[in-house]
Amino acid sequence: MSREELLYEGKAKKIFSTEDPDQVRVEYKDDATAFNGEKQGQIPGKGELNNRISAFFFEYLGRKGIPHHFLGTLSPREQLVKHVTILPVEVVVRNRAAGSLASRLGLEEGRVFTRPVVEFYLKDDELGDPLINEDHIALLQLATGEQVTGMRETALRVNEHLSALMAEKGIILVDFKLEFGVNGGGELLLADEISPDTCRFWDRETDEKLDKDRFRRDLGHVEEAYREIWHRLGGEAHV
Amino acid sequence: MSREELLYEGKAKKIFSTEDPDQVRVEYKDDATAFNGEKQGQIPGKGELNNRISAFFFEYLGRKGIPHHFLGTLSPREQLVKHVTILPVEVVVRNRAAGSLASRLGLEEGRVFTRPVVEFYLKDDELGDPLINEDHIALLQLATGEQVTGMRETALRVNEHLSALMAEKGIILVDFKLEFGVNGGGELLLADEISPDTCRFWDRETDEKLDKDRFRRDLGHVEEAYREIWHRLGGEAHV
Repeated sequence: MSREELLYEGKAKKIFSTEDPDQVRVEYKDDATAFNGEKQGQIPGKGELNNRISAFFFEYLGRKGIPHHFLGTLSPREQLVKHVTILPVEVVVRNRAAGSLASRLGLEEGRVFTRPVVEFYLKDDELGDPLINEDHIALLQLATGEQVTGMRETALRVNEHLSALMAEKGIILVDFKLEFGVNGGGELLLADEISPDTCRFWDRETDEKLDKDRFRRDLGHVEEAYREIWHRLGGEAHV
Repeated sequence: MSREELLYEGKAKKIFSTEDPDQVRVEYKDDATAFNGEKQGQIPGKGELNNRISAFFFEYLGRKGIPHHFLGTLSPREQLVKHVTILPVEVVVRNRAAGSLASRLGLEEGRVFTRPVVEFYLKDDELGDPLINEDHIALLQLATGEQVTGMRETALRVNEHLSALMAEKGIILVDFKLEFGVNGGGELLLADEISPDTCRFWDRETDEKLDKDRFRRDLGHVEEAYREIWHRLGGEAHV
């Protein structure tokens, strides 16, 4: 593998090889997409903010004992992570009704769940990332039964830690999406990113949305919302 | 409760009370609907055929030890069943890719699964009967965890028995939908109907569809297909 080969370009990130085959460089973009790519745009500053916010969350979760891919920040938009094979399953944890679940099940947005709901989605843009169950995961051989159990348990632990952290910052963690990867040794690691692109954050006092829903729904002040999350996490205001 | 009160009218059946509060009378209609009611029509003779076919399957499954609601046939279109509260969850078992699963997951119709796939759907016409998982069932309090386990296990047993029975008749059981009810004593019983309205049956030699897909897809010879199923089960040809 040559040095600095573009391995993958997603909607919000580029992944490059490094001299170490076990490590890759992630470059966060300002590009934003929603509704399975139907809506496209840019959020100035998003790349830098998500790079920092995601780094913060992974380091925090690492201290709580969650195995993850993050190694370190390289520059305002770049981070170094372990090279993993991403499992084609998106794991969603929901504490309140919002987004697709609210419309799917006819629930009022904001309804509080007595216990978190875990969902698996097939990571497949062409099919529109459909909801799947564990039998579908086995059928399509997307992950082993052990990996499914590991993803669910880790996702629930992440939910506990992040909900508690955000509560301290005056923010409700409504729901979030995780992705997992497997490294060369077969270890399941939390991967991808954790940011306002992948979480729903609501201000506890005002219910104001501080996440990508501002972009999805044309609510304005998108960049400010991402910046507010970074600020509440203790980040420098001038990023 | 007065004698012979109409308790419920569905797309394909009417349910009436009887003198015994623990029993209800089911009247099978010739009406057919598909695509969540968007397509409507009649299949002459369907009411009689499904009444007989469903009775046959329930009696067969009862002999195999599956607890069910069926008590007896009353007339060509009518049967007596135990009065149960239907759980608002449709349980689908699939042995091959077809219908919504094939399009949902991008699978070729007819692909054989190495093990059956079980799915739960929310029984809600307004929401279009969405696919749900066990966390959604708990969230919406549709069924207890014990009932979910019972439905899954029973559905897999039904699949084994019906697949074997139909194989003897030269028919592939592609997939089917079950509904379950709970009686006054809290017992979980297989309920609703089992018929070409609720199963996909393919002729083993020709792959010809012998089920409601003939109606859904305007393939013609709909009544003949239902009659063929009854005939293969040993029913009298002149029904």
